[in-house]
Amino acid sequence: MKPTAPLYLALLHHPVLDQHGEIITTAVTNLDIHDGGRIAATFGIQRYFLITPILEQRALVHRVRSHWVEGPGARKKSARHTAMALVEPLSDLQATCDQIEEREGLRPRIIGTSARPLPEKKVSYQDARNLLLQQETPLLLLFGTGWGIAPSISPSIDLYLPPIYGPTEFNHLSVRSAMSIILDRLLGS
Amino acid sequence: MKPTAPLYLALLHHPVLDQHGEIITTAVTNLDIHDGGRIAATFGIQRYFLITPILEQRALVHRVRSHWVEGPGARKKSARHTAMALVEPLSDLQATCDQIEEREGLRPRIIGTSARPLPEKKVSYQDARNLLLQQETPLLLLFGTGWGIAPSISPSIDLYLPPIYGPTEFNHLSVRSAMSIILDRLLGS
Repeated sequence: MKPTAPLYLALLHHPVLDQHGEIITTAVTNLDIHDGGRIAATFGIQRYFLITPILEQRALVHRVRSHWVEGPGARKKSARHTAMALVEPLSDLQATCDQIEEREGLRPRIIGTSARPLPEKKVSYQDARNLLLQQETPLLLLFGTGWGIAPSISPSIDLYLPPIYGPTEFNHLSVRSAMSIILDRLLGS
Repeated sequence: MKPTAPLYLALLHHPVLDQHGEIITTAVTNLDIHDGGRIAATFGIQRYFLITPILEQRALVHRVRSHWVEGPGARKKSARHTAMALVEPLSDLQATCDQIEEREGLRPRIIGTSARPLPEKKVSYQDARNLLLQQETPLLLLFGTGWGIAPSISPSIDLYLPPIYGPTEFNHLSVRSAMSIILDRLLGS
């Protein structure tokens, strides 16, 4: 099923929490760039944004992307090329929304994710799927690294998806696993 | 929903294919150890086996596991401890089936995965879910690294799950993403 709403994916590296609830900036990892690009290509996502305020980290993302999209890695038109062409580093959530508005003519509705149960703004996977398949407002699906998106971001988030559970109480998946599962729940065939 | 069948997860590093269809042995990666352990803990899997014929690579897995389960990383009883306690390196598929038989008293039925559509032994996600929820034969869910499980392994595989698609033709997810999505399809709540 093709979504009618343009869908964007973003991985936030600041402001996020550490295990003690303090605000930190996590490092961009090479594997998050690649795995996220491949998830974005699989699920027909418009762009996969890596959000970090650190200029050198954004330069790293640009370098990895360029290698596969314009540089030596691009010679053979590979799956990696398709995936990496969707990757883009940005400085903060504001710049991310500006970029989406620039492309779509509308600011996105932001759907947050969290491993913690949240009291408000909850949206079920089924309802989020309906938003994607029946509406046209751009959506930004936001994931936090570390121990999750900092509370200061909450006012910007329109809706929250529930945490992922299997048949256990354990809910400490990697952000790569969470992105994969949530996209499959929303758009898997 | 708790499965009635004991479920095991394995990641094969040999024999697997490279992009030209040649048989290779891939390297175990630190992230595959961690992400797989966290997936296993989330979905109530009995053991997560990393299969490689290379002794040094199995020693590496033991070392990473020990750090979190018995060593310095184990001091605070963390989620990482729970996840890493499920990780075990083994030399080949035979040893993996032996190990499961040792624990369960029965050899497992092997469910293979592939990014390529397969002509035979196909099982739908719904039918595989029913096997898990209604039967008691142990099941081993097998994933290949590189460009997938080598054909020489096929005779050992009882059933194959279909490849994962989103709303595009692109199906080059990382093996970490594929493991996450397939376990969620089989056992997600």
